[in-house]
Amino acid sequence: MIAWKEVTVPTGARVQLLDVTRHAAGQVSASKVRNGMCYLYVPHTTAGITINENADPDVVTDLVGGLERLVPRAGNYRHAEGNSDAHIKATLTGFSCMVPIVDGRLALGTWQGIYFCEFDGPRSRKLLIGISGEP
Amino acid sequence: MIAWKEVTVPTGARVQLLDVTRHAAGQVSASKVRNGMCYLYVPHTTAGITINENADPDVVTDLVGGLERLVPRAGNYRHAEGNSDAHIKATLTGFSCMVPIVDGRLALGTWQGIYFCEFDGPRSRKLLIGISGEP
Amino acid sequence: MIAWKEVTVPTGARVQLLDVTRHAAGQVSASKVRNGMCYLYVPHTTAGITINENADPDVVTDLVGGLERLVPRAGNYRHAEGNSDAHIKATLTGFSCMVPIVDGRLALGTWQGIYFCEFDGPRSRKLLIGISGEP
Repeated sequence: MIAWKEVTVPTGARVQLLDVTRHAAGQVSASKVRNGMCYLYVPHTTAGITINENADPDVVTDLVGGLERLVPRAGNYRHAEGNSDAHIKATLTGFSCMVPIVDGRLALGTWQGIYFCEFDGPRSRKLLIGISGEP
Repeated sequence: MIAWKEVTVPTGARVQLLDVTRHAAGQVSASKVRNGMCYLYVPHTTAGITINENADPDVVTDLVGGLERLVPRAGNYRHAEGNSDAHIKATLTGFSCMVPIVDGRLALGTWQGIYFCEFDGPRSRKLLIGISGEP
Repeated sequence: MIAWKEVTVPTGARVQLLDVTRHAAGQVSASKVRNGMCYLYVPHTTAGITINENADPDVVTDLVGGLERLVPRAGNYRHAEGNSDAHIKATLTGFSCMVPIVDGRLALGTWQGIYFCEFDGPRSRKLLIGISGEP
Protein backbone atom coordinates (compact mmCIF):
# COMPACT_ATOMS: atom_id res chain seq x y z
CA MET A 1 0.00 0.00 0.00
CA ILE A 2 2.97 2.29 0.44
CA ALA A 3 5.24 2.31 -2.58
CA TRP A 4 8.52 4.06 -1.83
CA LYS A 5 10.41 5.83 -4.61
CA GLU A 6 13.81 7.43 -4.25
CA VAL A 7 14.50 10.77 -5.88
CA THR A 8 17.92 12.43 -6.18
CA VAL A 9 18.08 16.08 -5.11
CA PRO A 10 21.27 17.92 -6.14
CA THR A 11 21.79 20.98 -3.94
CA GLY A 12 23.81 24.06 -4.89
CA ALA A 13 24.78 25.92 -1.72
CA ARG A 14 25.60 25.28 1.94
CA VAL A 15 22.12 26.34 3.03
CA GLN A 16 19.34 26.19 0.46
CA LEU A 17 15.63 25.44 0.36
CA LEU A 18 14.62 23.65 -2.85
CA ASP A 19 11.03 23.26 -4.01
CA VAL A 20 10.40 19.52 -4.45
CA THR A 21 6.62 19.73 -4.79
CA ARG A 22 6.71 18.48 -8.39
CA HIS A 23 8.39 15.22 -7.31
CA ALA A 24 5.60 14.52 -4.82
CA ALA A 25 2.87 15.57 -7.26
CA GLY A 26 4.34 13.27 -9.90
CA GLN A 27 4.27 10.26 -7.57
CA VAL A 28 0.69 11.01 -6.54
CA SER A 29 -0.37 11.23 -10.17
CA ALA A 30 1.43 7.98 -11.11
CA SER A 31 -0.07 6.14 -8.13
CA LYS A 32 -3.73 6.66 -9.19
CA VAL A 33 -4.52 7.06 -5.46
CA ARG A 34 -7.52 9.38 -5.02
CA ASN A 35 -7.76 9.56 -1.23
CA GLY A 36 -4.76 8.99 0.96
CA MET A 37 -1.44 10.42 2.03
CA CYS A 38 1.85 11.38 0.46
CA TYR A 39 4.86 10.97 2.74
CA LEU A 40 8.31 12.50 2.17
CA TYR A 41 11.38 11.30 4.05
CA VAL A 42 14.94 12.67 4.13
CA PRO A 43 17.55 9.96 4.93
CA HIS A 44 20.24 12.44 6.04
CA THR A 45 21.26 14.14 9.29
CA THR A 46 22.22 17.59 7.99
CA ALA A 47 19.21 18.14 5.73
CA GLY A 48 15.51 18.33 6.51
CA ILE A 49 12.16 19.03 4.89
CA THR A 50 9.43 21.60 5.45
CA ILE A 51 6.45 23.26 3.84
CA ASN A 52 6.19 27.00 3.21
CA GLU A 53 5.18 29.70 0.76
CA ASN A 54 5.71 29.05 -2.95
CA ALA A 55 4.85 32.55 -4.22
CA ASP A 56 7.25 35.26 -2.99
CA PRO A 57 10.85 33.92 -2.98
CA ASP A 58 11.63 36.44 -0.22
CA VAL A 59 9.79 34.15 2.20
CA VAL A 60 12.29 31.35 1.61
CA THR A 61 15.15 33.88 1.93
CA ASP A 62 13.74 35.04 5.26
CA LEU A 63 13.24 31.44 6.40
CA VAL A 64 16.90 30.66 5.68
CA GLY A 65 17.94 33.89 7.43
CA GLY A 66 15.76 33.12 10.44
CA LEU A 67 17.22 29.62 10.82
CA GLU A 68 20.78 31.02 10.48
CA ARG A 69 20.07 33.54 13.25
CA LEU A 70 18.60 30.85 15.51
CA VAL A 71 21.48 28.44 14.95
CA PRO A 72 24.66 30.20 13.75
CA ARG A 73 27.27 28.15 11.91
CA ALA A 74 30.01 29.27 14.31
CA GLY A 75 29.50 28.43 17.95
CA ASN A 76 30.75 26.52 20.93
CA TYR A 77 30.41 23.11 19.25
CA ARG A 78 32.37 19.92 19.91
CA HIS A 79 31.67 17.91 16.74
CA ALA A 80 34.87 18.02 14.70
CA GLU A 81 33.24 18.18 11.28
CA GLY A 82 32.19 21.78 11.88
CA ASN A 83 28.59 21.22 10.79
CA SER A 84 26.81 20.94 14.15
CA ASP A 85 24.57 23.85 13.19
CA ALA A 86 23.30 21.79 10.25
CA HIS A 87 22.42 18.87 12.55
CA ILE A 88 20.50 21.23 14.87
CA LYS A 89 18.68 22.98 12.02
CA ALA A 90 17.61 19.63 10.57
CA THR A 91 16.12 18.58 13.91
CA LEU A 92 14.19 21.88 14.00
CA THR A 93 12.63 21.40 10.56
CA GLY A 94 12.30 17.64 10.89
CA PHE A 95 13.16 14.82 8.50
CA SER A 96 9.71 13.98 7.17
CA CYS A 97 6.49 15.60 6.15
CA MET A 98 3.13 14.40 4.96
CA VAL A 99 0.50 15.94 2.70
CA PRO A 100 -3.06 14.64 2.28
CA ILE A 101 -4.20 13.35 -1.11
CA VAL A 102 -7.79 14.42 -1.88
CA ASP A 103 -9.52 13.72 -5.21
CA GLY A 104 -6.28 12.41 -6.68
CA ARG A 105 -4.21 15.51 -5.92
CA LEU A 106 -1.95 16.81 -3.15
CA ALA A 107 -4.21 18.84 -0.86
CA LEU A 108 -1.61 21.58 -0.41
CA GLY A 109 -2.93 24.98 0.61
CA THR A 110 -3.02 27.70 -2.06
CA TRP A 111 0.38 29.11 -1.08
CA GLN A 112 2.07 25.90 0.06
CA GLY A 113 5.07 24.26 -1.53
CA ILE A 114 7.23 21.43 -0.18
CA TYR A 115 10.88 22.38 0.41
CA PHE A 116 13.93 20.14 0.77
CA CYS A 117 16.16 21.91 3.31
CA GLU A 118 19.90 21.64 2.63
CA PHE A 119 21.94 22.76 5.64
CA ASP A 120 25.41 21.43 4.77
CA GLY A 121 25.70 21.42 1.00
CA PRO A 122 26.26 21.47 -1.82
CA ARG A 123 25.74 17.71 -2.09
CA SER A 124 23.79 15.08 -3.97
CA ARG A 125 20.91 14.22 -1.62
CA LYS A 126 18.20 11.58 -1.57
CA LEU A 127 14.50 11.95 -0.87
CA LEU A 128 12.07 9.07 -0.36
CA ILE A 129 8.45 9.57 -1.44
CA GLY A 130 5.71 7.15 -0.44
CA ILE A 131 2.00 7.00 -1.23
CA SER A 132 -0.74 5.36 0.80
CA GLY A 133 -4.45 5.24 0.06
CA GLU A 134 -7.20 4.06 -2.24
CA PRO A 135 -7.77 4.42 -5.98
CA MET B 1 -8.95 3.99 4.23
CA ILE B 2 -8.17 7.62 4.92
CA ALA B 3 -11.23 9.82 4.96
CA TRP B 4 -10.31 13.51 5.00
CA LYS B 5 -12.63 16.02 6.66
CA GLU B 6 -12.15 19.76 6.63
CA VAL B 7 -12.80 21.75 9.77
CA THR B 8 -12.93 25.56 9.99
CA VAL B 9 -10.88 27.12 12.79
CA PRO B 10 -11.64 30.81 13.48
CA THR B 11 -8.71 32.44 15.29
CA GLY B 12 -8.94 35.53 17.50
CA ALA B 13 -5.47 37.06 17.80
CA ARG B 14 -2.25 37.46 15.82
CA VAL B 15 -0.58 34.66 17.76
CA GLN B 16 -2.79 32.12 19.45
CA LEU B 17 -2.76 28.41 20.27
CA LEU B 18 -6.24 26.85 20.06
CA ASP B 19 -7.11 23.44 21.44
CA VAL B 20 -8.54 21.40 18.55
CA THR B 21 -8.45 18.02 20.30
CA ARG B 22 -12.25 17.72 20.26
CA HIS B 23 -12.31 17.93 16.45
CA ALA B 24 -9.88 15.04 16.15
CA ALA B 25 -11.64 13.01 18.85
CA GLY B 26 -14.96 13.53 17.08
CA GLN B 27 -13.60 12.22 13.77
CA VAL B 28 -12.07 9.19 15.49
CA SER B 29 -15.36 8.40 17.19
CA ALA B 30 -17.35 8.80 13.96
CA SER B 31 -14.90 6.61 12.02
CA LYS B 32 -15.40 3.49 14.18
CA VAL B 33 -11.67 2.82 13.74
CA ARG B 34 -10.30 0.96 16.78
CA ASN B 35 -6.61 0.72 15.89
CA GLY B 36 -4.98 3.18 13.59
CA MET B 37 -3.86 6.75 13.22
CA CYS B 38 -5.38 10.19 13.27
CA TYR B 39 -3.61 12.75 11.07
CA LEU B 40 -4.04 16.52 11.25
CA TYR B 41 -2.89 18.82 8.45
CA VAL B 42 -2.75 22.63 8.26
CA PRO B 43 -3.01 23.92 4.64
CA HIS B 44 -1.51 27.35 5.44
CA THR B 45 2.00 28.87 5.55
CA THR B 46 1.65 31.15 8.59
CA ALA B 47 -0.06 28.67 10.91
CA GLY B 48 1.09 25.31 12.26
CA ILE B 49 0.06 22.57 14.64
CA THR B 50 1.57 21.07 17.78
CA ILE B 51 0.82 19.03 20.86
CA ASN B 52 1.29 20.28 24.41
CA GLU B 53 -0.18 20.49 27.90
CA ASN B 54 -3.94 20.83 28.23
CA ALA B 55 -4.07 21.46 32.00
CA ASP B 56 -2.36 24.70 33.08
CA PRO B 57 -3.06 27.47 30.51
CA ASP B 58 0.23 29.12 31.58
CA VAL B 59 2.05 26.46 29.56
CA VAL B 60 0.45 27.66 26.35
CA THR B 61 1.20 31.26 27.34
CA ASP B 62 4.85 30.34 27.90
CA LEU B 63 4.94 28.43 24.61
CA VAL B 64 3.69 31.50 22.74
CA GLY B 65 6.19 33.67 24.63
CA GLY B 66 9.04 31.29 23.88
CA LEU B 67 8.25 31.24 20.16
CA GLU B 68 8.01 35.06 20.11
CA ARG B 69 11.44 35.33 21.76
CA LEU B 70 12.94 32.86 19.29
CA VAL B 71 11.45 34.57 16.24
CA PRO B 72 10.52 38.21 16.90
CA ARG B 73 7.92 39.85 14.66
CA ALA B 74 10.27 42.74 13.87
CA GLY B 75 13.57 41.84 12.26
CA ASN B 76 15.74 42.13 9.21
CA TYR B 77 13.18 40.53 6.87
CA ARG B 78 12.72 41.07 3.12
CA HIS B 79 9.18 39.70 2.59
CA ALA B 80 6.97 42.77 2.08
CA GLU B 81 3.91 41.41 3.87
CA GLY B 82 5.62 41.84 7.25
CA ASN B 83 4.76 38.36 8.47
CA SER B 84 8.04 36.51 7.89
CA ASP B 85 8.17 35.65 11.60
CA ALA B 86 4.90 33.75 11.15
CA HIS B 87 6.34 31.71 8.26
CA ILE B 88 9.41 30.83 10.35
CA LYS B 89 7.36 29.92 13.44
CA ALA B 90 5.14 27.65 11.36
CA THR B 91 8.16 25.78 10.01
CA LEU B 92 9.38 25.31 13.61
CA THR B 93 6.09 23.78 14.83
CA GLY B 94 5.37 22.00 11.56
CA PHE B 95 2.20 21.71 9.49
CA SER B 96 1.01 18.27 10.51
CA CYS B 97 0.81 15.98 13.46
CA MET B 98 -0.35 12.45 14.07
CA VAL B 99 -1.82 10.70 17.10
CA PRO B 100 -2.26 6.92 17.46
CA ILE B 101 -5.75 5.46 17.79
CA VAL B 102 -5.84 2.62 20.33
CA ASP B 103 -9.05 0.86 21.39
CA GLY B 104 -11.14 3.34 19.44
CA ARG B 105 -9.72 6.44 21.12
CA LEU B 106 -6.92 8.94 20.56
CA ALA B 107 -3.93 7.62 22.51
CA LEU B 108 -2.96 11.07 23.77
CA GLY B 109 -0.91 11.16 26.95
CA THR B 110 -2.65 12.25 30.15
CA TRP B 111 -1.63 15.90 29.78
CA GLN B 112 -1.63 16.14 25.99
CA GLY B 113 -3.90 18.30 23.88
CA ILE B 114 -3.63 19.13 20.17
CA TYR B 115 -3.14 22.83 19.42
CA PHE B 116 -3.73 24.73 16.19
CA CYS B 117 -1.01 27.42 16.09
CA GLU B 118 -2.08 30.76 14.63
CA PHE B 119 0.92 33.00 13.91
CA ASP B 120 -0.64 35.69 11.68
CA GLY B 121 -4.26 36.06 12.70
CA PRO B 122 -6.96 36.66 13.36
CA ARG B 123 -8.26 34.71 10.35
CA SER B 124 -10.61 31.93 9.40
CA ARG B 125 -8.36 28.88 9.03
CA LYS B 126 -8.81 25.34 7.77
CA LEU B 127 -7.68 22.08 9.30
CA LEU B 128 -7.79 18.68 7.57
CA ILE B 129 -8.34 15.60 9.72
CA GLY B 130 -7.83 12.09 8.35
CA ILE B 131 -8.27 8.66 9.90
CA SER B 132 -6.55 5.44 8.89
CA GLY B 133 -6.94 1.99 10.45
CA GLU B 134 -9.22 -0.93 11.18
CA PRO B 135 -12.65 -1.21 12.82
CA MET C 1 -2.89 -2.72 9.84
CA ILE C 2 -1.27 -0.57 12.49
CA ALA C 3 -0.30 -2.53 15.57
CA TRP C 4 0.71 -0.25 18.43
CA LYS C 5 3.24 -1.43 21.00
CA GLU C 6 4.23 0.50 24.10
CA VAL C 7 7.86 0.60 25.16
CA THR C 8 9.18 1.96 28.46
CA VAL C 9 12.10 4.39 28.20
CA PRO C 10 13.87 5.14 31.49
CA THR C 11 15.80 8.42 31.24
CA GLY C 12 18.80 9.37 33.37
CA ALA C 13 19.20 13.15 33.29
CA ARG C 14 17.13 16.33 33.01
CA VAL C 15 18.00 16.70 29.33
CA GLN C 16 19.11 13.61 27.44
CA LEU C 17 18.83 12.15 23.96
CA LEU C 18 18.51 8.35 24.00
CA ASP C 19 18.93 6.17 20.93
CA VAL C 20 15.72 4.12 20.58
CA THR C 21 16.41 2.83 17.07
CA ARG C 22 16.65 -0.78 18.27
CA HIS C 23 13.08 -0.65 19.63
CA ALA C 24 11.73 0.44 16.25
CA ALA C 25 13.90 -2.04 14.35
CA GLY C 26 12.68 -4.85 16.61
CA GLN C 27 9.02 -4.02 15.93
CA VAL C 28 9.64 -3.85 12.19
CA SER C 29 11.35 -7.23 12.26
CA ALA C 30 8.56 -8.81 14.33
CA SER C 31 5.85 -7.37 12.06
CA LYS C 32 7.07 -9.13 8.89
CA VAL C 33 6.09 -5.96 7.00
CA ARG C 34 8.33 -5.51 3.94
CA ASN C 35 7.06 -2.21 2.57
CA GLY C 36 5.41 0.35 4.79
CA MET C 37 5.99 2.79 7.59
CA CYS C 38 7.18 2.75 11.16
CA TYR C 39 5.64 5.44 13.37
CA LEU C 40 6.93 6.53 16.78
CA TYR C 41 4.81 8.58 19.18
CA VAL C 42 5.71 10.20 22.52
CA PRO C 43 2.66 10.58 24.84
CA HIS C 44 4.26 13.30 27.00
CA THR C 45 4.47 17.10 26.95
CA THR C 46 8.05 17.60 28.17
CA ALA C 47 9.72 14.99 25.96
CA GLY C 48 9.93 14.68 22.19
CA ILE C 49 11.52 12.60 19.46
CA THR C 50 13.92 13.30 16.62
CA ILE C 51 16.35 11.72 14.20
CA ASN C 52 20.04 12.56 14.07
CA GLU C 53 23.57 11.19 13.76
CA ASN C 54 24.35 7.85 15.39
CA ALA C 55 28.13 7.89 14.85
CA ASP C 56 29.93 10.70 16.70
CA PRO C 57 28.34 11.22 20.17
CA ASP C 58 29.52 14.86 20.02
CA VAL C 59 26.66 15.53 17.59
CA VAL C 60 24.08 14.63 20.24
CA THR C 61 26.00 16.73 22.79
CA ASP C 62 25.92 19.70 20.41
CA LEU C 63 22.24 19.12 19.70
CA VAL C 64 21.45 19.23 23.42
CA GLY C 65 23.63 22.33 23.80
CA GLY C 66 21.97 24.02 20.84
CA LEU C 67 18.47 23.40 22.21
CA GLU C 68 19.55 24.67 25.66
CA ARG C 69 20.87 27.89 24.08
CA LEU C 70 17.68 28.37 22.08
CA VAL C 71 15.39 27.76 25.06
CA PRO C 72 17.17 28.32 28.40
CA ARG C 73 15.75 26.65 31.50
CA ALA C 74 15.59 29.97 33.35
CA GLY C 75 13.48 32.68 31.80
CA ASN C 76 10.46 34.89 32.11
CA TYR C 77 8.01 31.97 32.42
CA ARG C 78 4.64 31.86 34.20
CA HIS C 79 4.08 28.08 34.52
CA ALA C 80 4.67 27.28 38.21
CA GLU C 81 6.29 23.87 37.66
CA GLY C 82 9.47 25.50 36.36
CA ASN C 83 9.71 23.31 33.27
CA SER C 84 8.32 25.62 30.60
CA ASP C 85 11.58 25.30 28.68
CA ALA C 86 10.94 21.54 28.40
CA HIS C 87 7.45 22.14 26.95
CA ILE C 88 8.90 24.55 24.37
CA LYS C 89 11.79 22.24 23.44
CA ALA C 90 9.36 19.35 22.93
CA THR C 91 7.25 21.42 20.55
CA LEU C 92 10.43 22.25 18.58
CA THR C 93 11.46 18.60 18.14
CA GLY C 94 7.91 17.32 17.83
CA PHE C 95 6.16 14.35 19.43
CA SER C 96 6.24 11.87 16.58
CA CYS C 97 8.42 10.71 13.77
CA MET C 98 8.10 8.23 10.96
CA VAL C 99 10.63 6.12 9.09
CA PRO C 100 9.93 4.22 5.85
CA ILE C 101 10.15 0.42 5.81
CA VAL C 102 11.77 -0.87 2.61
CA ASP C 103 12.57 -4.54 1.99
CA GLY C 104 11.64 -5.41 5.54
CA ARG C 105 13.99 -2.93 7.20
CA LEU C 106 13.91 0.64 8.48
CA ALA C 107 15.10 2.81 5.59
CA LEU C 108 17.20 5.02 7.85
CA GLY C 109 20.06 6.86 6.19
CA THR C 110 23.60 5.59 6.83
CA TRP C 111 24.20 7.98 9.73
CA GLN C 112 20.65 8.18 11.09
CA GLY C 113 19.46 7.00 14.48
CA ILE C 114 16.14 7.68 16.22
CA TYR C 115 16.44 9.64 19.48
CA PHE C 116 13.97 9.93 22.34
CA CYS C 117 14.39 13.49 23.67
CA GLU C 118 14.06 13.86 27.44
CA PHE C 119 13.72 17.52 28.46
CA ASP C 120 12.50 17.22 32.07
CA GLY C 121 13.93 14.01 33.49
CA PRO C 122 15.01 11.74 34.84
CA ARG C 123 11.71 9.86 34.54
CA SER C 124 10.21 6.63 33.31
CA ARG C 125 8.78 7.51 29.89
CA LYS C 126 6.60 5.73 27.36
CA LEU C 127 7.02 5.43 23.61
CA LEU C 128 4.40 4.05 21.21
CA ILE C 129 5.62 2.26 18.09
CA GLY C 130 3.26 1.39 15.24
CA ILE C 131 3.80 -0.42 11.94
CA SER C 132 1.74 -0.07 8.77
CA GLY C 133 2.27 -1.85 5.45
CA GLU C 134 2.34 -5.10 3.55
CA PRO C 135 4.16 -8.40 4.13
